[in-house]
Amino acid sequence: MNFASDNTGPAHPRVLTALARANEGHAKAYGEDALTAEVEARLADIFEAPGAAVALVGTGTAANALLVSTLAAPWQTVFCAEVSHLHEDECNAPEFYTGGAKLSLVASRDGKITPNALRARIAMEGTRGVHGPAPGPVSLTNVTERGAVYTGAEVEAVCAVAGENGLPVHLDGARFANALAATGSSPAEMSWKAGVDALSFGGTKNGLMAAEAAILFDAARAEELAYRRKRGAQLWSKHRFLAAQMSAFLEDGLWLDLAAAANARANELRAGLMAIDGVELLHEPIANVTFARWPRGLHRKALAQGVSYYLYEGPLESGAEDVRLTCRLVCHWATTAEDVGAFIDLLRRG
Amino acid sequence: MNFASDNTGPAHPRVLTALARANEGHAKAYGEDALTAEVEARLADIFEAPGAAVALVGTGTAANALLVSTLAAPWQTVFCAEVSHLHEDECNAPEFYTGGAKLSLVASRDGKITPNALRARIAMEGTRGVHGPAPGPVSLTNVTERGAVYTGAEVEAVCAVAGENGLPVHLDGARFANALAATGSSPAEMSWKAGVDALSFGGTKNGLMAAEAAILFDAARAEELAYRRKRGAQLWSKHRFLAAQMSAFLEDGLWLDLAAAANARANELRAGLMAIDGVELLHEPIANVTFARWPRGLHRKALAQGVSYYLYEGPLESGAEDVRLTCRLVCHWATTAEDVGAFIDLLRRG
Amino acid sequence: MNFASDNTGPAHPRVLTALARANEGHAKAYGEDALTAEVEARLADIFEAPGAAVALVGTGTAANALLVSTLAAPWQTVFCAEVSHLHEDECNAPEFYTGGAKLSLVASRDGKITPNALRARIAMEGTRGVHGPAPGPVSLTNVTERGAVYTGAEVEAVCAVAGENGLPVHLDGARFANALAATGSSPAEMSWKAGVDALSFGGTKNGLMAAEAAILFDAARAEELAYRRKRGAQLWSKHRFLAAQMSAFLEDGLWLDLAAAANARANELRAGLMAIDGVELLHEPIANVTFARWPRGLHRKALAQGVSYYLYEGPLESGAEDVRLTCRLVCHWATTAEDVGAFIDLLRRG
Amino acid sequence: MNFASDNTGPAHPRVLTALARANEGHAKAYGEDALTAEVEARLADIFEAPGAAVALVGTGTAANALLVSTLAAPWQTVFCAEVSHLHEDECNAPEFYTGGAKLSLVASRDGKITPNALRARIAMEGTRGVHGPAPGPVSLTNVTERGAVYTGAEVEAVCAVAGENGLPVHLDGARFANALAATGSSPAEMSWKAGVDALSFGGTKNGLMAAEAAILFDAARAEELAYRRKRGAQLWSKHRFLAAQMSAFLEDGLWLDLAAAANARANELRAGLMAIDGVELLHEPIANVTFARWPRGLHRKALAQGVSYYLYEGPLESGAEDVRLTCRLVCHWATTAEDVGAFIDLLRRG
Repeated sequence: MNFASDNTGPAHPRVLTALARANEGHAKAYGEDALTAEVEARLADIFEAPGAAVALVGTGTAANALLVSTLAAPWQTVFCAEVSHLHEDECNAPEFYTGGAKLSLVASRDGKITPNALRARIAMEGTRGVHGPAPGPVSLTNVTERGAVYTGAEVEAVCAVAGENGLPVHLDGARFANALAATGSSPAEMSWKAGVDALSFGGTKNGLMAAEAAILFDAARAEELAYRRKRGAQLWSKHRFLAAQMSAFLEDGLWLDLAAAANARANELRAGLMAIDGVELLHEPIANVTFARWPRGLHRKALAQGVSYYLYEGPLESGAEDVRLTCRLVCHWATTAEDVGAFIDLLRRG
Repeated sequence: MNFASDNTGPAHPRVLTALARANEGHAKAYGEDALTAEVEARLADIFEAPGAAVALVGTGTAANALLVSTLAAPWQTVFCAEVSHLHEDECNAPEFYTGGAKLSLVASRDGKITPNALRARIAMEGTRGVHGPAPGPVSLTNVTERGAVYTGAEVEAVCAVAGENGLPVHLDGARFANALAATGSSPAEMSWKAGVDALSFGGTKNGLMAAEAAILFDAARAEELAYRRKRGAQLWSKHRFLAAQMSAFLEDGLWLDLAAAANARANELRAGLMAIDGVELLHEPIANVTFARWPRGLHRKALAQGVSYYLYEGPLESGAEDVRLTCRLVCHWATTAEDVGAFIDLLRRG
Repeated sequence: MNFASDNTGPAHPRVLTALARANEGHAKAYGEDALTAEVEARLADIFEAPGAAVALVGTGTAANALLVSTLAAPWQTVFCAEVSHLHEDECNAPEFYTGGAKLSLVASRDGKITPNALRARIAMEGTRGVHGPAPGPVSLTNVTERGAVYTGAEVEAVCAVAGENGLPVHLDGARFANALAATGSSPAEMSWKAGVDALSFGGTKNGLMAAEAAILFDAARAEELAYRRKRGAQLWSKHRFLAAQMSAFLEDGLWLDLAAAANARANELRAGLMAIDGVELLHEPIANVTFARWPRGLHRKALAQGVSYYLYEGPLESGAEDVRLTCRLVCHWATTAEDVGAFIDLLRRG
Repeated sequence: MNFASDNTGPAHPRVLTALARANEGHAKAYGEDALTAEVEARLADIFEAPGAAVALVGTGTAANALLVSTLAAPWQTVFCAEVSHLHEDECNAPEFYTGGAKLSLVASRDGKITPNALRARIAMEGTRGVHGPAPGPVSLTNVTERGAVYTGAEVEAVCAVAGENGLPVHLDGARFANALAATGSSPAEMSWKAGVDALSFGGTKNGLMAAEAAILFDAARAEELAYRRKRGAQLWSKHRFLAAQMSAFLEDGLWLDLAAAANARANELRAGLMAIDGVELLHEPIANVTFARWPRGLHRKALAQGVSYYLYEGPLESGAEDVRLTCRLVCHWATTAEDVGAFIDLLRRG
């Protein structure tokens, strides 16, 4: 029973098959192979964005850092949630790739930035002229780091505030598919139609080995993105193996099926948790990430039996048994109903 | 018949098998899995360097940029061959990762830096105090970009000059295995025993999908390397898939067998070429990369028949038939004797 | 009546005299002149720190950015007050000079960081391993941006928390002299004896034209500081004109006299303000910077009559007359008792 | 007798007078004072470029680094002479300010880039796609580092090559006034009319204390330049003291008079040198910088008698008396005819 992260789960078998298929014979290096061109076109198609520029990379942090640095000048500040991956989990990669831009943290609700909070934060930053940083792009995360999900309308409302201020919008979509599966929005509705300029389209967390797509909906800066990728040491030489992963992902909607499966398991998990006395759900989760609280004693028992998940509060070892501690539980495409059931049983037995 | 690059060839089947094997169940993310620890230890063992720090990454440019930035302060200059990959093929990644260090180009013979040339270049740079840049690390490439190979003794002689000046040494070993196979040196003899402080240990060109190891022989800066990797957006979340590739590579000496095979094919190729009138070999090649010259007309015929390789001079389309143009021919682990034979036949027929 | 900033005031006449004196004949460029050596030695003497490394520069932001980048690695975060100049007024210069380090904002009281707040902030940042940034230097400001002053003991208490965590300390002393004048501490007591590793020793705000000293109390990184200054384009060619300013400043304690004068005027100002109904002082000011609040109507009258100072709240033009708005009032060495008196009279008349 | 550099000479008395005049009363900080606006307008006027954006800074390296970073993307390369100040004397400041752009060195004649050499160098760099760097701005220096001078027509011819390739042009004019005085070109003819986009307009070497103007002839990027200056820690708070220097410089053509005086002394010096047996002039000097060669023995005598100048070859102490060594001799506005005469006498006596 492993709910530590969607990163701890395996790749889908069709991804391995695609790698094997792509492994035949020779292919041009550095993204000039036919499969890469095909996958880029397929992504543009799925997003109803014929002009989009696509750059495949191996990590989500790379997609974020490349896109944010394409949108932000070094003397600007990027508006993002105080709990965003960009700020908390990328070891200054955004600052590095932008050449020293700042991140201005926006207080969020469940990881979601509200239009009012954003408007206030932009107003606060925009008052110091050259002493400032200048206001720069807004970066959202959907699914958020707290497991909440923006609807397409909510993304649009935040983008509208960015637009009022002439600022572009980046969306960190490491779990973009899960957000679509949870809301029923189309890829385009959740991105450029809502006002998003650049999307980190996640793959690794959702069944790939190591593949993400950095997407710019306006191709005017496509060449810049290509140079930035190479300069960032993110351009794979045997690029067909990035393309093959993404190709399998997109084929027959596998990517959406995998996300739907993960969300379904998370829904079962939440139904089970809510039926247990002393367990509380946080942050209105509707996708594959769940935050919950329950007594320390119960955490001790669960973790002692080998279940994996992240405690967000502590300490585990000492303190009153009945104090409730927050944890995060993530389901992924390969999480089984049996795993979920067994975990709920374990908690229920207390 | 594809001699364009070792990047255009496939991954070895045992690599795919290893990926499938690693794909079972859960594994800790971000390099904290057991397979990663095992592979890092195995590398230290192969290099007889128990204290070495290892960071697996997906691209050779990443390994180079991370290591060079660990060795070079931003106000220093890196001494490298004028034809080095670092300078010519990484789109300023070294400058980016170092925060703006300079590269001081050393005139090379066949891509090899001589002790005297290096000594003179360091002396020239070290005369301007704070107006300078300060002299920084030396970076060698073995196999060189022109296909020549440093012997262990030659590496040692260059490192000695660096040492006289208190400068550390990086070795770009994208084709390190080919250099070992060509010279019979041991991994340690060709690296730290010769005075190398940091090695980019190549895998992708030699049969992996996307995996390289950045190795620091002195672990004092291991933590810095780990932070730099994450900050560079180079830390894979499903890290087991980097480890699995490297594990297959190291098992039973596969990495050396693959390099030996590539070198053997290149030897056959060179033997064939030398027997053809009007064909000339350049740069004393002994590994898997060959530079040669032959008449433009012969290039036209070969390329028209679908052979792939890089022309280093041009133009192909216009100009006298009998002017000799330089090209590069690369063999890799999967290049077949038949391919080599067919290509030689094709050229021989003229 | 100008209380806008100590930057809006003039240079002291002895500074001009010193420039004229330094202007005779030839002097070595780039800081190799005799006057520079003399001034550097004089500073080390004043700080009872014979080993200190000194770099004169033209702006306070340069002193801060150079010192912070000497103390902080690019993958670290700098702990500073949420109102610090470093964060709010330097347009990402710290991020630029450090190569992309982050600033972690510590909630302050009147711009002063408390040991507990710092301890908690460091603990919060130090939990994410390579995903983090790593904890880096602590940066204090004395006099703070809100006009409050750390005593030497308070600086020591904050430095102790940094020390527990192995972190170095920078002190932004743009108004260092005013802090000394307000507390009676010696230069050494307020800096290295309290645990400060690096000091931005301000001159411009206190009667110079454009001269600050970046001081490292441990000279081990003196050479790095020298290279960083040149690389940052901060090394004056006719360096004697930086040195001449600083020389006049240090001669016969002029720097302390000027700060004492500014503080004295601010004390008169505060005494006057406290006697006026409806005027409230903020942040326990004891040096030359005063924050106060009074009714909007009174601000309108004062500003309409040509007094200069910064309103920190607004709007001025619209809104109820009797709502109290915060402003900042700065006295400098040349502020006269007459100016202060006239301003108090003006406010008293209402 | 000091011919070491124009940086070793004094500031002009009118500069000191202007500083004293500017020192009265209060002035807005950070460049918002009236004198700054006046000086910026005056510069635009002198250059017949009403739309030009001007940023005053304290060092020539700052002007160069700010302008080059405004023109060059981090993944580009800057074309400059192999002897340029940008490359040889700024300790990686261009690499730092651009965020890691490369410098591509163009072989020059006397520090002058020829159209053909530039065309060839651009062609060579533009062949590697994203592996590149991409071709970026061209940077010229006039007067060159070897004392030669481009005519306006020569600048235009080089700019034309840049234009053919869509590349902008920067001109390092640390000695721009001396180039005008030597050629009779107008400021506009030597800059934007010839195709220059950005000019480092030197002041310090020509009689100021520390003041240069970074000029962008197209104001579209004026705001960027302003942010870059502040982010680079180059914005003076008491900015009136930068403006005052520049104001005195521009008043009644002082800047041109000073350059003309320096050039005149250099002409006298060269006339004297040419009349001495065994002395040879290099690089066709016509402005205030002279390179010459004469026997080692003669250098020993001159330097032993306290004359200051830079030897470009050595060693001085050992070696045959009659081997000729190269040196640089710089005249500045305050160099006297007596100094020149005495030096020539000294050499003539041998």
